[in-house]
Amino acid sequence: MRVGDLSRATGVPVATIKYYQREGLLPHGERAGYNQVSYTDEHVRRLRLVRALVDVGGLSITATSQVLAAIGDAGDNLFSALGKVHYAVTASTREAPESTDRVDELLDRLGWKVKAGNPSRAALAGLLDTFTDLGHADLLDRLDDYAEHAAALAALDVAGLEIRDTKDEKLEATVVMTVLGDVLVSLLRRMAQEHLATGYRPAQ
Amino acid sequence: MRVGDLSRATGVPVATIKYYQREGLLPHGERAGYNQVSYTDEHVRRLRLVRALVDVGGLSITATSQVLAAIGDAGDNLFSALGKVHYAVTASTREAPESTDRVDELLDRLGWKVKAGNPSRAALAGLLDTFTDLGHADLLDRLDDYAEHAAALAALDVAGLEIRDTKDEKLEATVVMTVLGDVLVSLLRRMAQEHLATGYRPAQ
Repeated sequence: MRVGDLSRATGVPVATIKYYQREGLLPHGERAGYNQVSYTDEHVRRLRLVRALVDVGGLSITATSQVLAAIGDAGDNLFSALGKVHYAVTASTREAPESTDRVDELLDRLGWKVKAGNPSRAALAGLLDTFTDLGHADLLDRLDDYAEHAAALAALDVAGLEIRDTKDEKLEATVVMTVLGDVLVSLLRRMAQEHLATGYRPAQ
Repeated sequence: MRVGDLSRATGVPVATIKYYQREGLLPHGERAGYNQVSYTDEHVRRLRLVRALVDVGGLSITATSQVLAAIGDAGDNLFSALGKVHYAVTASTREAPESTDRVDELLDRLGWKVKAGNPSRAALAGLLDTFTDLGHADLLDRLDDYAEHAAALAALDVAGLEIRDTKDEKLEATVVMTVLGDVLVSLLRRMAQEHLATGYRPAQ
């Protein structure tokens, strides 16, 4: 198909498609004669994934590029690919957070094996510091309970990967569940908050 | 304190403080004589909250402004304030999503009372459409299980609000748990994913 067909199939403007190509988010088409470039269903699929990560997942172009590079470079090591995806989407805003020991102790108590270099460790320590700075540290008194329910969600994510057969399918599912899974959990949690906040609801 | 003291107390540059004031995120100080403006501990507290929402929570300036307006306008109705906070932080990217019925049925099955106007309903329907478009609808076969664990997290959030005494404290805790709670759950879930992805880990 031509670039115009790719645009119509995905709803993405041609100028945006060219921008994504310049940024390395989408491979170029095959040259098919003078002034013609041809695109395949693989381009449609990749373009839909890029749009989902950017528009729905809220990733930056840089983070999207790193996530897609993790898919491309994965080799046979899916565990390492998962780490790269996590690295791309996890921003740590503090250097040497004070709550580092608290995170280490939490992981010890839970028995979770998490690499020292996983950026979520430092990001969580920084987040705990933020709660403390805001005077809301006690909202996290039940941090272990939060972790247990997060683990139950992660188990669902990992079960989702199990139903994928090939390495490429598992990789794409990893990206989708990591990025869009965050959005899924946030939305479900907000609706449950509204349902549970009955004590704050005005009397009918 | 002077604006320079406010800047030192929070680590926020003076130019950024003035920008937040122009955007309505931070009240102006009290005029205290010729060419002098005085700030209080309340400014320190508000400025730290703004930074946490923007830097850690990843909110836009517009969303931060709407969240803070929800605190300011709350009156005595905390339930309505929760709704306004949710409205400010929830973006729906599709009009008339096809999965609207599926979300209605999910909420019915779960017995959750969620207002028709809660933006999370439309956003979740749009997200389900996205999973379908990407060819990953089956990753959400266990959507009800995701919802049950999200509800367990929301119960922890609401329990956190219960330990706050005054209306203003409850409102601020609502904002913190809604926005920073998303980050907390994401980070815990990622670490649990790494721990659970043992099947993908190379043999030692």
